[in-house]
Amino acid sequence: MQTLPGLVVTGASGRMGQMLIRTIAASDKARLAGCLERPGHAWVGRDVGECMGGGPLGVLVTDDPLEAFAQAQGVIDFTAPAATVAFAALAAQARAVHVIGTTGLEPEHIAAIEAAARHAVIVRAGNMSLGVNLLVRLTQKVAQALDADWDIEVVEAHHRMKVDAPSGTALMLGQAAAEGRGVTLEQAMVSGRDGITGARERGTIGFSAIRGGDVVGEHDVIFAADGERIVLRHLATDRTIFARGALKAALWGQGQKPGHYDMMDVLGL
Amino acid sequence: MQTLPGLVVTGASGRMGQMLIRTIAASDKARLAGCLERPGHAWVGRDVGECMGGGPLGVLVTDDPLEAFAQAQGVIDFTAPAATVAFAALAAQARAVHVIGTTGLEPEHIAAIEAAARHAVIVRAGNMSLGVNLLVRLTQKVAQALDADWDIEVVEAHHRMKVDAPSGTALMLGQAAAEGRGVTLEQAMVSGRDGITGARERGTIGFSAIRGGDVVGEHDVIFAADGERIVLRHLATDRTIFARGALKAALWGQGQKPGHYDMMDVLGL
Amino acid sequence: MQTLPGLVVTGASGRMGQMLIRTIAASDKARLAGCLERPGHAWVGRDVGECMGGGPLGVLVTDDPLEAFAQAQGVIDFTAPAATVAFAALAAQARAVHVIGTTGLEPEHIAAIEAAARHAVIVRAGNMSLGVNLLVRLTQKVAQALDADWDIEVVEAHHRMKVDAPSGTALMLGQAAAEGRGVTLEQAMVSGRDGITGARERGTIGFSAIRGGDVVGEHDVIFAADGERIVLRHLATDRTIFARGALKAALWGQGQKPGHYDMMDVLGL
Amino acid sequence: MQTLPGLVVTGASGRMGQMLIRTIAASDKARLAGCLERPGHAWVGRDVGECMGGGPLGVLVTDDPLEAFAQAQGVIDFTAPAATVAFAALAAQARAVHVIGTTGLEPEHIAAIEAAARHAVIVRAGNMSLGVNLLVRLTQKVAQALDADWDIEVVEAHHRMKVDAPSGTALMLGQAAAEGRGVTLEQAMVSGRDGITGARERGTIGFSAIRGGDVVGEHDVIFAADGERIVLRHLATDRTIFARGALKAALWGQGQKPGHYDMMDVLGL
Repeated sequence: MQTLPGLVVTGASGRMGQMLIRTIAASDKARLAGCLERPGHAWVGRDVGECMGGGPLGVLVTDDPLEAFAQAQGVIDFTAPAATVAFAALAAQARAVHVIGTTGLEPEHIAAIEAAARHAVIVRAGNMSLGVNLLVRLTQKVAQALDADWDIEVVEAHHRMKVDAPSGTALMLGQAAAEGRGVTLEQAMVSGRDGITGARERGTIGFSAIRGGDVVGEHDVIFAADGERIVLRHLATDRTIFARGALKAALWGQGQKPGHYDMMDVLGL
Repeated sequence: MQTLPGLVVTGASGRMGQMLIRTIAASDKARLAGCLERPGHAWVGRDVGECMGGGPLGVLVTDDPLEAFAQAQGVIDFTAPAATVAFAALAAQARAVHVIGTTGLEPEHIAAIEAAARHAVIVRAGNMSLGVNLLVRLTQKVAQALDADWDIEVVEAHHRMKVDAPSGTALMLGQAAAEGRGVTLEQAMVSGRDGITGARERGTIGFSAIRGGDVVGEHDVIFAADGERIVLRHLATDRTIFARGALKAALWGQGQKPGHYDMMDVLGL
Repeated sequence: MQTLPGLVVTGASGRMGQMLIRTIAASDKARLAGCLERPGHAWVGRDVGECMGGGPLGVLVTDDPLEAFAQAQGVIDFTAPAATVAFAALAAQARAVHVIGTTGLEPEHIAAIEAAARHAVIVRAGNMSLGVNLLVRLTQKVAQALDADWDIEVVEAHHRMKVDAPSGTALMLGQAAAEGRGVTLEQAMVSGRDGITGARERGTIGFSAIRGGDVVGEHDVIFAADGERIVLRHLATDRTIFARGALKAALWGQGQKPGHYDMMDVLGL
Repeated sequence: MQTLPGLVVTGASGRMGQMLIRTIAASDKARLAGCLERPGHAWVGRDVGECMGGGPLGVLVTDDPLEAFAQAQGVIDFTAPAATVAFAALAAQARAVHVIGTTGLEPEHIAAIEAAARHAVIVRAGNMSLGVNLLVRLTQKVAQALDADWDIEVVEAHHRMKVDAPSGTALMLGQAAAEGRGVTLEQAMVSGRDGITGARERGTIGFSAIRGGDVVGEHDVIFAADGERIVLRHLATDRTIFARGALKAALWGQGQKPGHYDMMDVLGL
């Protein structure tokens, strides 16, 4: 009997961490090999299933990443930049696939991740849903096919707790549109129209951010010409799509050559 | 045989003026009694139908408002604040119903219009479409029925030539929402989110402005709670709805008592 | 110290039953007083929290409705018609508020419920969300305000497992539109257009049903005239809104006079 | 000075014919070389501009296709199948590009058109808008990238006068989706859901048709999975997009080798 790939979840007690643990525990393609929290956290040393308010899962939460990674084939990591950089080195040392969903990475963090990716498989993405990554690819192709008679607008809606605008995914979509057009997003971006704006400038890419309720995430890329419009839309209604995407990435990474991959590679887009 | 009410169109050569002329000429409930342009305009003295590139309509463009209004039962006026104030006095003198679609009126203009309305029927509205005025009314009622667990957002889309944001109609909708909630729009309004905004503040009313193509006008009022949303939407796809609304207002005004009315009165909302 | 109203959940092991149990257990306005399952069910006699895979809730599942209802102030019931009719009599005997979300009730079931409602408070609704009930009310009012130049269409989207079309909520909306128009839905209804349909007949109400994914429930009521449209939309993204609506109904029913109420009464619409 | 390509419009008095004439007359890339109507039509022998209620355009309406085509480089034709087949032979004889927007062609008509295309350039499309053709291409690619966990639904809305459902464009989109999936549309198509339908069958492609007002044409292709959706949407708000697409096709056809082309060729998609 072949053993399923064992995966470690970092930041086990967080909302995303718990969702990842449930997703792996429910999967028949991977097994939960470890759960990591920071030293001193109340969950350390206890069964993670019981910590989450359910039945036991047979996996104790640990604060020792090296020990946890050594017994695993993959690490799924939605934590913070500094922690992620440290985990990248340790995962490479353990030859475990490192799936990174951490946001807010600065160039120096990315450089450290690149270095680790010389010896190990790293998959990193700002959004792990299949649909969003497909939408990014479509946006680029449509922006390339249409000229500047078609005005581009990116509209996103998120829950009331979101603290920044536009969303990271909206920026990914805008970036893809700019690439398709052969311009930089910095040149083209117009965000947060208000007051006397003047007529829309040709070739710009506009952004609008709607906030309210518990909306998981909705993104529209609008191409508006005289007499017609094309809209490319993605709706996320359940956060488990991000956990399932991360699991898919960890499985895909098994047996790949060392390198720094993204979800486009995983999805074969 | 009863004669149809005769209507004068001001600003005859403008886009809205021409649309009004066509709408009245095609109607079997009113007749085109006059067309006004400013002194020196190339159309003055010529048949307005021929000026517009079609067959003759039997009405010469004039630059004398008093003469034109004296022979009419109504004046439809989408021009500029100063002209509108002058027309209000002349229309009142001629006992003609004055329908005002002019925007950008300041308090002093409105005071002058109020004065004229003591002796004549004036109908004034920022948007003459039946649908928008109904939406304003619905927005107020829904905002009243729902508490602040429901976040309110107003999203509008217009053509690329529009120079201000949010649209006047979006502000009317926001005003109605604020009234329904028992707050002032000044307190509650958040427009043009961009950057690190922090979490959405309870009780605020958000505005987003989309610009592109030749979109006539689209407005969404979103009420977003946990797990559900209500959206009240109006789509305008043809500018003739504004001309038809103005014609409806001019006909409704016949026989009303002097006063300053709006489209809610006309539509019986 | 005042005791919170105690509520019994029928059909405890079903998807809706479990959601109701979690909602009541998490509320600070009611307490879980009992959980009912049919005789012979595996959960009978066990702690319901443990049956659901979490920590104990201190409530054993029972198969004796009379005993359960006798200790409660309310019963929330999303089961099947025959069971609901039996529960209505027992709840009336126990003077407990009976909240009924059961669907598929025939006239004879409703007659039995009406009989029970002479002695007890019964709240019954096809959809317990605040938003949907508000949308029903708005639909009626808009249909009343607009004439038949405005074509009415009801479009709904639900998950792939739904077995009937249009949805019960779409029919409620169509019913409200017909009432607003002063016609019967039987006369006006057109559902499932396909093939050579001929031009749309004036005054009809059209229905379309979209099926896919795990969509919880989306309803649009479209009023389409020449040049403009009004759309009234409700989006449900989380089934807990129905559980929260039922809890709200059970609390509202405390202290009301005997009678057969609906969610409009509860919501004060 | 180089002469602009001269174009003939068939069916000159129809709604589409008049729009084509206006579009060509306003273009600086082509000139109006002729206008065709059937023998006995009231417009024959008169200036087409005056027939349309405007100023003269210097082109008399004729009922002789051979004479008209002989002086032209292109023919734009939105008429009826039998007329189109006759025009195809005459246009080929005159070496004029034949742009065909006629719908309802049966296999025998298409065979005759194919025969003419051996000697001349023919561009034929069910929908001449750039946006719709791009949407068709995108639909195929997305259907290919996603497996049957993503349910496909095509939803279209059109004006109240439309007599068939689903629209020809919706069928083109469904065809593209089926090709992307490697199935035939006949196998997969489900249209007009109504009544007890049972759960959605995996791999099917659903169609819904909304009718109301004067909607020019709106098409959504929905891909719905658990927790997320992708929607590809096209909105047509002005019928001139079809006229402009046909003009673009006639210009593109100049200098091409004989053959039977479609809008994908014209647009380089």
